[in-house]
Amino acid sequence: MIIVMKHDASKKEIGNLTDHLTTCGYRLTISEGVERTVIGAIGDESLLKGKQVQTFPGVDEIIPISKPYKLVSREFKKEDTVIDIKGVKIGGKELAVMSGPCSVESLEQAHTIALKTSAKGSKILRGGAYKPRTSPYSFQGMGPEGLIYLRKAADEFGMIVVTELTDPRDLDIVSEYADIIQIGARNMQNFRLLHEVGAQEKPVLLKRGMSATIKEFLLAAEHIAKEGNSNIILCERGIRTFETYTRNTLDLACVPAIKSLSHLPIIVDPSHGTGRIECIGPMALAAVAAGADGLMLEVHPNPDEALSDGDQSLTPDQYCEVIDKVEIIAKAVGREIAK
Amino acid sequence: MIIVMKHDASKKEIGNLTDHLTTCGYRLTISEGVERTVIGAIGDESLLKGKQVQTFPGVDEIIPISKPYKLVSREFKKEDTVIDIKGVKIGGKELAVMSGPCSVESLEQAHTIALKTSAKGSKILRGGAYKPRTSPYSFQGMGPEGLIYLRKAADEFGMIVVTELTDPRDLDIVSEYADIIQIGARNMQNFRLLHEVGAQEKPVLLKRGMSATIKEFLLAAEHIAKEGNSNIILCERGIRTFETYTRNTLDLACVPAIKSLSHLPIIVDPSHGTGRIECIGPMALAAVAAGADGLMLEVHPNPDEALSDGDQSLTPDQYCEVIDKVEIIAKAVGREIAK
Amino acid sequence: MIIVMKHDASKKEIGNLTDHLTTCGYRLTISEGVERTVIGAIGDESLLKGKQVQTFPGVDEIIPISKPYKLVSREFKKEDTVIDIKGVKIGGKELAVMSGPCSVESLEQAHTIALKTSAKGSKILRGGAYKPRTSPYSFQGMGPEGLIYLRKAADEFGMIVVTELTDPRDLDIVSEYADIIQIGARNMQNFRLLHEVGAQEKPVLLKRGMSATIKEFLLAAEHIAKEGNSNIILCERGIRTFETYTRNTLDLACVPAIKSLSHLPIIVDPSHGTGRIECIGPMALAAVAAGADGLMLEVHPNPDEALSDGDQSLTPDQYCEVIDKVEIIAKAVGREIAK
Amino acid sequence: MIIVMKHDASKKEIGNLTDHLTTCGYRLTISEGVERTVIGAIGDESLLKGKQVQTFPGVDEIIPISKPYKLVSREFKKEDTVIDIKGVKIGGKELAVMSGPCSVESLEQAHTIALKTSAKGSKILRGGAYKPRTSPYSFQGMGPEGLIYLRKAADEFGMIVVTELTDPRDLDIVSEYADIIQIGARNMQNFRLLHEVGAQEKPVLLKRGMSATIKEFLLAAEHIAKEGNSNIILCERGIRTFETYTRNTLDLACVPAIKSLSHLPIIVDPSHGTGRIECIGPMALAAVAAGADGLMLEVHPNPDEALSDGDQSLTPDQYCEVIDKVEIIAKAVGREIAK
Repeated sequence: MIIVMKHDASKKEIGNLTDHLTTCGYRLTISEGVERTVIGAIGDESLLKGKQVQTFPGVDEIIPISKPYKLVSREFKKEDTVIDIKGVKIGGKELAVMSGPCSVESLEQAHTIALKTSAKGSKILRGGAYKPRTSPYSFQGMGPEGLIYLRKAADEFGMIVVTELTDPRDLDIVSEYADIIQIGARNMQNFRLLHEVGAQEKPVLLKRGMSATIKEFLLAAEHIAKEGNSNIILCERGIRTFETYTRNTLDLACVPAIKSLSHLPIIVDPSHGTGRIECIGPMALAAVAAGADGLMLEVHPNPDEALSDGDQSLTPDQYCEVIDKVEIIAKAVGREIAK
Repeated sequence: MIIVMKHDASKKEIGNLTDHLTTCGYRLTISEGVERTVIGAIGDESLLKGKQVQTFPGVDEIIPISKPYKLVSREFKKEDTVIDIKGVKIGGKELAVMSGPCSVESLEQAHTIALKTSAKGSKILRGGAYKPRTSPYSFQGMGPEGLIYLRKAADEFGMIVVTELTDPRDLDIVSEYADIIQIGARNMQNFRLLHEVGAQEKPVLLKRGMSATIKEFLLAAEHIAKEGNSNIILCERGIRTFETYTRNTLDLACVPAIKSLSHLPIIVDPSHGTGRIECIGPMALAAVAAGADGLMLEVHPNPDEALSDGDQSLTPDQYCEVIDKVEIIAKAVGREIAK
Repeated sequence: MIIVMKHDASKKEIGNLTDHLTTCGYRLTISEGVERTVIGAIGDESLLKGKQVQTFPGVDEIIPISKPYKLVSREFKKEDTVIDIKGVKIGGKELAVMSGPCSVESLEQAHTIALKTSAKGSKILRGGAYKPRTSPYSFQGMGPEGLIYLRKAADEFGMIVVTELTDPRDLDIVSEYADIIQIGARNMQNFRLLHEVGAQEKPVLLKRGMSATIKEFLLAAEHIAKEGNSNIILCERGIRTFETYTRNTLDLACVPAIKSLSHLPIIVDPSHGTGRIECIGPMALAAVAAGADGLMLEVHPNPDEALSDGDQSLTPDQYCEVIDKVEIIAKAVGREIAK
Repeated sequence: MIIVMKHDASKKEIGNLTDHLTTCGYRLTISEGVERTVIGAIGDESLLKGKQVQTFPGVDEIIPISKPYKLVSREFKKEDTVIDIKGVKIGGKELAVMSGPCSVESLEQAHTIALKTSAKGSKILRGGAYKPRTSPYSFQGMGPEGLIYLRKAADEFGMIVVTELTDPRDLDIVSEYADIIQIGARNMQNFRLLHEVGAQEKPVLLKRGMSATIKEFLLAAEHIAKEGNSNIILCERGIRTFETYTRNTLDLACVPAIKSLSHLPIIVDPSHGTGRIECIGPMALAAVAAGADGLMLEVHPNPDEALSDGDQSLTPDQYCEVIDKVEIIAKAVGREIAK
């Protein structure tokens, strides 16, 4: 921790602080500059035991030095994490393609989509049974019935299932049907939910919150890892900015940034990230070019009849077109899509 | 709903859409402009039964006309909602002053604060027992013990209690000790939690999410109201913007904006909203001048030893100074602080 | 300057950097922590002569210690700057009220407004003759004719004039008619324009850019001050955020923040800052309560016929109502409005 | 234009407005819904002659229908614009690669970079002679001398020159040396400067402002086109958001979005867009995968001695590595890099 004193901090103020830090067990280096004094305090921040440095008179700024996350950091583990779920590997050479409807609406719908997407290399079926919706008057998901349909459709085509958990009380039933448990963007800082999925064994897909910085995103993953589960797949799905033409602003630079900061795999969701049909394909290609480990794509047999997010769902035909192009980009960057 | 067709939409495309809308039960008015055709579709949006208009060929933009929230809107109820909790009125002439520590740390701490703040007109004691913390290595709250201390301290000085609920499984115990249940900013779109507090009777303090628009904020309140509980107090606590000098950007203009859109009371939290001691007092005054129905202020007897948020907590003395000034502004705008 | 080395920086990397810094003339303190080495480099940043530290292998982060602005900082000058323009003082006890139309449209219009606002304590007439407009198809201002009308109207009622400069080539003519030269939000980082107004003698009203941090705002002021002119009035007019209900998000916390960082006066423009009639009055009161040194308000005799910004202009009657309330708040915080 | 009336608008209020609109020359369609009345007003917005509709009593919202830009829109011109500058085509199959230092520092520096980048397919040399810098204490550029060096270096290797114009008074000298005139992000709404470059013949590279929406970006281009010059190259260079890990947030989705809205070519600048060495390469690839027509890359022979932006400059070797990868992606999407 670096402590920058105010321009006019008195010797006494500086002395009070250094005495306190020494008592706490810190080793100090003190730099008396022309304009102000800077104190380097070496030692773990837990030494403070909750004492606040900011409130000491004369203190201008505190600059933490250690990265606040450990278990998910690249410093903690140098090599990339590859998660293996029933033989489907996420984080390796093969891109993870998660596709399916925003909401599960019927067995037939789930079946049709699984048929088409699995034929095109998707091994992971996505679909929501519990839907967090901005308006209370929108469709809120089918609940358990949706989970059953999703599982059935996936099993028939040898796919695995990812679906969202929105309430700790649903953990048992969601775990029964899902292979990967999704934590949605709106729950990225629902820490109680993070602790629950951290304390069980199924891999977790953690979506970035709409206003979460990269640091907060990794700290949310750290909440999960600290409970014991480090099978975490990160997912960039767009952040909220002043631009409203697209539904969100897809922050693709977070892919190489997170690759340098963390060993966890990261995929990209251009459907929620842009909310516009004409942007989904190009951003899927861009994500793979930027180094993403996979994609999450919304597909619906009849987007104009979708009960949610119809305007950002690809038809199965559009989906196949996008995947054909993704395959070419994947090869160009040394990745591949399953056949 | 207004549907703007594309510049080059064909007659057939327009016909397909208008046929569809008529079948659904809409009454239509069609304006053929020089540049493009615009269709007004009159009728409830539920007529669509999940059919998406956006995906019809030739459609450029859909513009909803009805406000998406009803129960919390000023159109639904013209007069201001005043919530009465054991005689403490929120939304009326008297300002609601909620004060206390970020986290409850001991009975003594809660007691000291309640003693000082109640003497200065605060009738509502706040304090966290379950703390959502960005880092898993930070203090996460005392849990049930914290609730007990908060209640004891409040009772001794005739105060009521507001505290945060972060998990539906804690609802019973939180309800046992709290008079107002707080939903924090990070859970503003934890819809399952909103539904739980909507289905019980204690008033709810709903904090604005960091990236929530005013519309989404009111829709979150609508989620609560739709379940039956319309005793909702809104709280502006700062939004996330590019400015990092302050912890958040306190959006005070949302106070008059929400006053015109909704009948619910709205208070302001300048402690979280600015995160800087030098800004808390001025922004408390500004909030009252802007028409807020109350304030939430963090107070700690020894901010430099606080287990959380010490750098934005007022000492009891600073608190008294702020309240003295608030009182003058309150009078100037026709409000008052309890004696 | 503090230099944080990477976790795995080698001794050689650290040595290379420290040798370089010593050669440049810095005095160093080196802290070897458990996790990483931190170097404090004491000395003026000009010692680097353009050499970049960031690019040395092993460097993780550079943390500047000195504030980047000097002349406009509170450390440079402790007491508040009060600017006296023909007897009108800005930054003192009396609030500076600048009012007038968005665009000057005719002599009659300027005259009507000056008559009404000067009667209500406004000593400063504002109005645009050169208008920066988002669309090239909108009214771009009257040019020199507008300046003449503004001057005439102001002189008749003993007011001083503030108007915007958008091009260095207009400096002479604008200076001829204006008492205060306004630099608009869109030109806050038009450094060539800042240098021009810095090199002449008329006071400058500098509006905060839509995406400018407080630090960048003060650095823009420093650009002016460095050229010799320190008669600068800052103006908060709203920043761009994800919230679109209001035209901008008025960042009132920047008032106390800037008061602590700088000695310059700061006023607030709630007309541009909110763009909504129902928010202008409440935010004017809030600004004064927060400690602003004045207000800028758009007034138009017939807002429904205004050639620009009609929907955020007060009528003279609405203006008088707002000022009556402002006066009460001003008294409450120890300020006053001229009679 | 669509006018949505308030819930409780009276018949008289509606009548006043419709009378006014009819008098102005609009053709009206009026939809009386259950909740509110909606008026469609067909006709050019210039009919209003500055009269404001927003201020009529009873009006809730005005929704413009026409796109506000015309000349730069895809509706105005269906086919892609390809700009030919001395045989270098921008907007066609071949990617435009603009590379060079942030600031020109010497003839030798410019020469070294041109030698390396031209050998790698870059036909366009970039470099700043007039630098807009946030701090007045940073290097402000070499001025005319820099232009001379840039031209010499470019000529030797058959390259064309792009450089920034920051002041209308420099137009003549910049035009003498540059083939493409750059308008920087900070001047995107310096409309006087836009009008100047619109009234001359050299192609213009227009960078997106840090807080500019896609609509405002295209309107800034419209300001140029309206003066007669439609040889405009757009450049996405990152927008300002809450994320501070990267210097800006590169909004790549604006590439496909603008491709659908406008016929103008658009390139991407990942150097300014991310400000981090580890992100520049991946985002260059992503930009090309997303459909960008070219790249702008900062290259410096010794980034650690750069007088500006050293920490985001590639060395010539790093540059060659990036271009090798870009070439593979270019082929994958049917584009190419010059040999």
